Amino acid sequence: MSNKATNKKVITHAPMEQFATLNGELSVAGKTISEIAAIAGQTPFYLYSKAIIDENIKRLRQQFPQVSLHYAIKANPMPQLVSYVANQMDGLDVASGKELKIALASSIKAKDISFAGPGKSEQELAMAIASGISINIESLTELERIQEIASNVNKTAAIAIRINPDFELKSSGMKMGGGSQQFGIDVEQLDPVFELLQDDALSLKGLHIFTGSQNLNPDAIIAAHDNIFALVKRLREKYHFQIDHLNIGGGLGIPYFPGDKHLELSPIADNLNRLFKDYAQLVNSCEIILELGRYIVGNAGLYICQVTDKKISRDKTYLVCNGGLHHHLAASGNFGQVIRKNYPVAIANKMDALEKELVNLVGPLCTPLDILASKMKLAKAEIGDLVAIYQSGAYGFSASPRDFLSHPEPLELLL
Amino acid sequence: MSNKATNKKVITHAPMEQFATLNGELSVAGKTISEIAAIAGQTPFYLYSKAIIDENIKRLRQQFPQVSLHYAIKANPMPQLVSYVANQMDGLDVASGKELKIALASSIKAKDISFAGPGKSEQELAMAIASGISINIESLTELERIQEIASNVNKTAAIAIRINPDFELKSSGMKMGGGSQQFGIDVEQLDPVFELLQDDALSLKGLHIFTGSQNLNPDAIIAAHDNIFALVKRLREKYHFQIDHLNIGGGLGIPYFPGDKHLELSPIADNLNRLFKDYAQLVNSCEIILELGRYIVGNAGLYICQVTDKKISRDKTYLVCNGGLHHHLAASGNFGQVIRKNYPVAIANKMDALEKELVNLVGPLCTPLDILASKMKLAKAEIGDLVAIYQSGAYGFSASPRDFLSHPEPLELLL
Repeated sequence: MSNKATNKKVITHAPMEQFATLNGELSVAGKTISEIAAIAGQTPFYLYSKAIIDENIKRLRQQFPQVSLHYAIKANPMPQLVSYVANQMDGLDVASGKELKIALASSIKAKDISFAGPGKSEQELAMAIASGISINIESLTELERIQEIASNVNKTAAIAIRINPDFELKSSGMKMGGGSQQFGIDVEQLDPVFELLQDDALSLKGLHIFTGSQNLNPDAIIAAHDNIFALVKRLREKYHFQIDHLNIGGGLGIPYFPGDKHLELSPIADNLNRLFKDYAQLVNSCEIILELGRYIVGNAGLYICQVTDKKISRDKTYLVCNGGLHHHLAASGNFGQVIRKNYPVAIANKMDALEKELVNLVGPLCTPLDILASKMKLAKAEIGDLVAIYQSGAYGFSASPRDFLSHPEPLELLL
Repeated sequence: MSNKATNKKVITHAPMEQFATLNGELSVAGKTISEIAAIAGQTPFYLYSKAIIDENIKRLRQQFPQVSLHYAIKANPMPQLVSYVANQMDGLDVASGKELKIALASSIKAKDISFAGPGKSEQELAMAIASGISINIESLTELERIQEIASNVNKTAAIAIRINPDFELKSSGMKMGGGSQQFGIDVEQLDPVFELLQDDALSLKGLHIFTGSQNLNPDAIIAAHDNIFALVKRLREKYHFQIDHLNIGGGLGIPYFPGDKHLELSPIADNLNRLFKDYAQLVNSCEIILELGRYIVGNAGLYICQVTDKKISRDKTYLVCNGGLHHHLAASGNFGQVIRKNYPVAIANKMDALEKELVNLVGPLCTPLDILASKMKLAKAEIGDLVAIYQSGAYGFSASPRDFLSHPEPLELLL
């Protein structure tokens, strides 16, 4: 290696130590990836680890003992996974009528299910009112619709106000609060909302202040929490309301790309402890909820596909796989990334291989967008080897254009 | 308006004149968009116009009378649309086993169907051999697999070599030839391919040289055609083969974004006429094929959704729709675009409205990626109005993550 290369700063992926190896292979639930491929009976497949989900929840429970934990189904709506996660959660959050049906089939009580999302249909609102879940309203118009539907069926609808605050979450992968937003109701537009909430068909149960997702900076999350509690205090002084829950969102990120670090939870927990003391009066009568999706399931999932061809075109080596963009849009770099970066990847049946090779991992689609890894040093692979894309438990299967080019569907396994 | 604003160059969308209006509404097949929404029985839906498809094909036939026209199913695989288009085409191109089944159900003969795509599965190769279609090989390994499968079933497989040339298509939306590629076989690696093609189980039928898609620059397409014919001549001199078809790809673009212009076909046609004379010996015994997907169906399709909420958040007006990114990933800017740009959009039931409004058109998903139009001046819209996204006939429905957040599926209508 030349001095030049030695001096170059190499930014690598965070270690994916949540997965063990067995006989030189990536393993889940005590089985090698080759054995699991045999169980699946096909590649490609998504593989989710119960044990890693358990670890994630245990870590959160240890760090945040005073907080209620909700799972946001949108991160991974596989019905059996939702049931598995729900057994260890205090509540579920849904984003559509179909997700609501999945939530109702779990062990979670209706009162601990909430429904957020701009532009809910009248049918969805009727489903929510009939089932008795909490509706996070996104506009005054939506509250008016709920009032009308609930009145017509002689029900009282449980309402949480989703508030677009007057502060932002810094360093977030996606900002969803502060400034001008399609989400929630601007904090300065709440007067008519509280007025309408006097109606008998409506019952205010909570507030929902969610500022952004996929954040790896504890200081930014701490600042958002400080701002949320201060805002709620201010609003209670102005509008004199009681609530039984405050959803402070989630936003806890996981490392995807070279240079990303694992998020430190303890400073966030220490700050929440302080806030629980400073705002004792609020907290005594009100459940504080962290709503988490990606953080619960993201690192527990793998996308597994198989090398079907290996070709050298001029200066580059291509591993062609039977999986790609159509199954895993985010890993291809086409889902909210401005510049394409590689997800962490391994040759899953050659975890101990010493011989490495610089390769481009591509899928079977007739489009140059179908890239799973670009210029990545991996164990030297051959046709038939299994490829693992890590950090694929959230926004993978359900967030991909699986009909694109009409290839077979991947399976989903929870082991 | 200030002088500053007047001096600013405004770059607008190309006119979407392919659609008529009726009673102030966008119309297809002599019906207003409101009538069509009633036929659909729901929003959102995709709407494809037979008449516009016909016009596109007629224009191509007029300009390119000596060329065979193939439809690339991947652009829009809706089965009835494929059958409709196939009735006016000379062949079909498929990219997966499922697309092959759709092609076989159409009026096109098996010999005029070709199958391209890296990493075809053994099952797909067996399907292709059994059905007698032409297989565009992407590597020597693939040819070896075909030879083995065909030998085992005592068949002769029809082969076209997909060649990665030693030149590039300039100004293309996506480059798929030249340099290092996952597609095709590098032109300098053809010796072992021609050697293996001597095998009785294999029969060389054609060449496929496709260099890129979505090109709006006639000069770049002309240069690619020149290079393709010269390359084929060179290869025939070196390898002494006969072929019955040469697929020169497609790549004819359509305007999507502000500043894009309609592609001029006549210079491309003039150049092809010249090439047909210059390469008369080749052309006399060989069908020249243009493979088109987007150009046939792209401008014939609309995505229609409905405004479900209108909200002003601080300085911006949002129209919240019941459709979005999950149905139309490309329009949201998350499919191969580096910088998000607006597709052409209209308020479809208010085509003659004089009052305009600067709005942000967003979908129902809990993600800030769910944008259909950003800061766009549209007819002033209210809840219930119908939104049309133009240029949605290709890579829309099938190329979108329709399960993301588990909202209802859009319909597809062909009228």
